[in-house]
Amino acid sequence: MEQPPFAKPSVTVADVARAAGVSKATAARVLGGYGIVSDAVREKVLAAAKALDYRPNELARSMTTGRSGAIGVVVGDIENPFFSSAVRGITDVARAAGYTVILANSGEDIAAEKDAIRTLIAKRVDGLIVAPSRSREIDHLRDLQRSGRPLALLDRAIPELAVDTVTVDDREAAEAATRLLIEHGHRRLAYVTACDTPEHTYRDLADIHTASVRHRIEGFLSACEAARIPPAGRSVWLGANSRQETRRLAMERLKPPQPPTAVLASDSLIALEIFKVARELGLSIPDDLSLITFHDADWTSVTSPSVTVIDQPVHQLGTAVAELLVSRLKGYNGAARHMVFPTRLVARASVAIRNPPDTSI
Amino acid sequence: MEQPPFAKPSVTVADVARAAGVSKATAARVLGGYGIVSDAVREKVLAAAKALDYRPNELARSMTTGRSGAIGVVVGDIENPFFSSAVRGITDVARAAGYTVILANSGEDIAAEKDAIRTLIAKRVDGLIVAPSRSREIDHLRDLQRSGRPLALLDRAIPELAVDTVTVDDREAAEAATRLLIEHGHRRLAYVTACDTPEHTYRDLADIHTASVRHRIEGFLSACEAARIPPAGRSVWLGANSRQETRRLAMERLKPPQPPTAVLASDSLIALEIFKVARELGLSIPDDLSLITFHDADWTSVTSPSVTVIDQPVHQLGTAVAELLVSRLKGYNGAARHMVFPTRLVARASVAIRNPPDTSI
Repeated sequence: MEQPPFAKPSVTVADVARAAGVSKATAARVLGGYGIVSDAVREKVLAAAKALDYRPNELARSMTTGRSGAIGVVVGDIENPFFSSAVRGITDVARAAGYTVILANSGEDIAAEKDAIRTLIAKRVDGLIVAPSRSREIDHLRDLQRSGRPLALLDRAIPELAVDTVTVDDREAAEAATRLLIEHGHRRLAYVTACDTPEHTYRDLADIHTASVRHRIEGFLSACEAARIPPAGRSVWLGANSRQETRRLAMERLKPPQPPTAVLASDSLIALEIFKVARELGLSIPDDLSLITFHDADWTSVTSPSVTVIDQPVHQLGTAVAELLVSRLKGYNGAARHMVFPTRLVARASVAIRNPPDTSI
Repeated sequence: MEQPPFAKPSVTVADVARAAGVSKATAARVLGGYGIVSDAVREKVLAAAKALDYRPNELARSMTTGRSGAIGVVVGDIENPFFSSAVRGITDVARAAGYTVILANSGEDIAAEKDAIRTLIAKRVDGLIVAPSRSREIDHLRDLQRSGRPLALLDRAIPELAVDTVTVDDREAAEAATRLLIEHGHRRLAYVTACDTPEHTYRDLADIHTASVRHRIEGFLSACEAARIPPAGRSVWLGANSRQETRRLAMERLKPPQPPTAVLASDSLIALEIFKVARELGLSIPDDLSLITFHDADWTSVTSPSVTVIDQPVHQLGTAVAELLVSRLKGYNGAARHMVFPTRLVARASVAIRNPPDTSI
């Protein structure tokens, strides 16, 4: 069957003017809410608009007001439950405030992020919420800021940019989780994260250009150092950017000669892959491998064993960052605000005591 | 610290004209790619545009072309992994085709859906992808269709609307899963779904106004009837619209006197809640309760027991529906297309044999 051929043309201001028997300029004044007209004329025009089902052309209005009524949102990957939950929070707040949300994924790739932001600016979004994939390559974000469009950062701070930011206490959270593992006697620990360096190897904090990742690694290493765990016992695995990559990393490094006895995962997708690979390798969780992950994803409470998690208030991160942006759009012009939400270590069954503590390294 | 006060004004056609030493009309012709100008003038204008970092105002261009370059997408809930995965597929295709995606959640509420579509039309999106929450209340979708804007439906068909649609074989999938449960000796089965009726009770297929839900219930009931399971043994639980509601339903109906011995869940969020409640009630899966769910969500393979699922090609549903819409936006004007993707029953460990088969009803 054919698509209906009749495309009803949009009702225009001219149509309303004709139906109301007034000039187009008068109808435009009433419908646009500016200028002076008599009550009688106003009622006549509004009645005609209603009868014709007139809908204001927001594009035309945008041209006049310079506002599009849209917020651009750039996240790593909407399929990651962390981001889908945050985006739900953002859309709820945006909708209540009368804004639509234009969504883009960066895939944690800086070129894709720049491209998305360029497109969103060309669409004349009123403001942007970005989870920046790099904290060093920020010229495009500076440009954005200079353009006068409000920008707010989700989950990852960039100190050099004085913009509204919503994050969690990444450093403290990683430190507390690592300390828990150490208190259970673990001396060979790994932190696994999606970030990467050109060499795919962790050497130094200075190589890590995503703020939240750097803070978490800092927390992890700091807890290790405080417990005098030697360098060989504290490893950072970079490059867990996809299921396939995480799987490859885990398959390679959970095997002898020196697999970690405890892993801290930076998100639930990574933890799930570690969980699966451990099972395939015949490693028992928690007896052979203890596991803690950032993000209290739904499934973490129903696995056997259930997984100890760092619970982040993800939906709230989304609503908070949207509220900060909306306040700017409504004219708030004060100093940049940085909200840091606390996390909560939820102890479940995936951490076992190493008894006696591992002394092989 | 203050936000930078300098808002760099956008470079306009007039700025480019001035820098190139030509009239505004000439600059507009070159930058808009219409009309005739000499090569020398064209080069002068393009050089000035480049030097000034001129970016075409897409809103202005939209006013001329009538196109916004945006696709509106209305899903039930972006937090549901089914929709986040489909939306990822949609955004990938849209981006490759040069479109942005404006995202809205209906929460499966018809008023919210109408509201979202109204907003998206006012934003002059070029086309829409909707997962309609009702297959009866469709006046707003008819209006949309009449407006000449391409519309494509995701996951839920509406036969009365001749529009491009992408679904899965819901009826066959539900029938096959139900048959598997019956073959394992189950005689007290429940189908649990997010849809609802005003009375919150299932009486008749005619009360079910979401196409995919109706097809699945049809498949479930048809398999039950073919196996001569009496009405008391085949129940349909409506209203599992949120975690809380699903929990309430499960808490109430998984208890004596007549709990089902097998449940088919319409999505992974429902299955997860059933899983949790069963555990809380001390019901062993699969010995006391067998479970199958639509959607091969990540976690279903790592629970103990792992969960038997109906695997839907969700990301592919997203890419397919976006490709159908983009083809319309590029001028394809043929008959409405209805793509039905096959599903796959993946047998895991959550279905047990009832031996002897239950004959108490």
